[in-house]
Amino acid sequence: MITKLQVKYIQSLGQKKFRDEEAVFIAEGPRIINELLGAAAITPVSVYATRGWIQENIRAGKSSPSFQVIEIKEAELERLSFLQTPNEVLGIFKKPLYAALDFSNTLSLMLDGIQDPGNLGTIIRIADWFGISNIVCSEDCADAFAPKVVQATMGSIARVKLLYTDLVALAKKTRPLQLYAATLDGQSVHQQQPIKEAVLVTGNESKGISAALLDCCQHRITIPRIGQAESLNAAVATGIILSHIVKR
Amino acid sequence: MITKLQVKYIQSLGQKKFRDEEAVFIAEGPRIINELLGAAAITPVSVYATRGWIQENIRAGKSSPSFQVIEIKEAELERLSFLQTPNEVLGIFKKPLYAALDFSNTLSLMLDGIQDPGNLGTIIRIADWFGISNIVCSEDCADAFAPKVVQATMGSIARVKLLYTDLVALAKKTRPLQLYAATLDGQSVHQQQPIKEAVLVTGNESKGISAALLDCCQHRITIPRIGQAESLNAAVATGIILSHIVKR
Repeated sequence: MITKLQVKYIQSLGQKKFRDEEAVFIAEGPRIINELLGAAAITPVSVYATRGWIQENIRAGKSSPSFQVIEIKEAELERLSFLQTPNEVLGIFKKPLYAALDFSNTLSLMLDGIQDPGNLGTIIRIADWFGISNIVCSEDCADAFAPKVVQATMGSIARVKLLYTDLVALAKKTRPLQLYAATLDGQSVHQQQPIKEAVLVTGNESKGISAALLDCCQHRITIPRIGQAESLNAAVATGIILSHIVKR
Repeated sequence: MITKLQVKYIQSLGQKKFRDEEAVFIAEGPRIINELLGAAAITPVSVYATRGWIQENIRAGKSSPSFQVIEIKEAELERLSFLQTPNEVLGIFKKPLYAALDFSNTLSLMLDGIQDPGNLGTIIRIADWFGISNIVCSEDCADAFAPKVVQATMGSIARVKLLYTDLVALAKKTRPLQLYAATLDGQSVHQQQPIKEAVLVTGNESKGISAALLDCCQHRITIPRIGQAESLNAAVATGIILSHIVKR
């Protein structure tokens, strides 16, 4: 059973302003909820779930009940859900916040103005696939804790460290860190050896990397075009470059 | 000025059934419309556009007026548009239909049950980037001529040849063509040399490649996982594998 106040609270978390104020985010569906409940870096606040999900996951002792569990009916879940097809469970989790990231001995990502929630979620999932744990986002990137982004990460949001900051200021502060800009006019990925320590910079879907940030990049890297498409999707380009430069 | 009948006709083309009956598809926005008007393989039927677009593109002689041009007001375009933000022009084009594709001396794609329109559009754009012109879709793939897919291709739909058919039947018929299945348990892309003639097979977003089609694949190819994500997005995986196996 849920109250009107609970419905209103959860719906408000669809807005970045309220997510920031409360420092929480929402995820939905058994698969991602179970990943988040099992993730060391993520603290659950509460879970709204159908009787079936609770019986299978809480009463069966699969998860420790160190958070609030509210049993709701499917019709109630429909009122709460941000999904087209609500799916058994919705959870509220504390946003993992990082004041700084450690860039030494690792490959990291910088995202400059990635606008599309699906692209951002897909990039977080790609980073997790390639074992990259640092993602620095410019302040005008989409919010990684928006419901659409969280769902697109397929649970990977639990395993990457996200920091929103002024990228140019960070790039200047963290020199001599090597920045590799994903551009249309750089060195071919096929000529690039795997890199032990660097930051790959991906730009906005239509405008690319801002001029000020590009100025901070010591290297430019390119996926050679063979056909005629004007560009590649930002997430696809990030995945392709990582597959060539991640140290195996 | 548009009539009620025109509005109704265009709206009906949002449905696959009517697109198939009429053998046409819709695209929107100056960038993609200009690409389609300039594409040899695409025949325009009619264009609904604002006065500004017509003056700049038709009256200025940039495109030959071998198709119907209907001037409409922005408010009228809003009624027609499938986009959240209508953009100057909407065009109706004949669907390029291919009864068969030539797989010799080239790399081709087979898509087995790609469901998400954004993924399908992105894969078409990736194919165009890597100079791949053959894409064979299983009959349960999303429709490549749905408005969302067409927009996601960013114009690349004009440069690839699409065929919807039974993939298993085609694979058996076109032997000894080499089929490379994108799977989680194959040979590493890093050990794979560029390939001159083959078909890369990408499966459904959650179920992968069907067992019957996998049986037809002589090779399996994998992007080595370094981190913990369970899988990669189907379009991203297709892009990464192509970047390693396309002959440069």
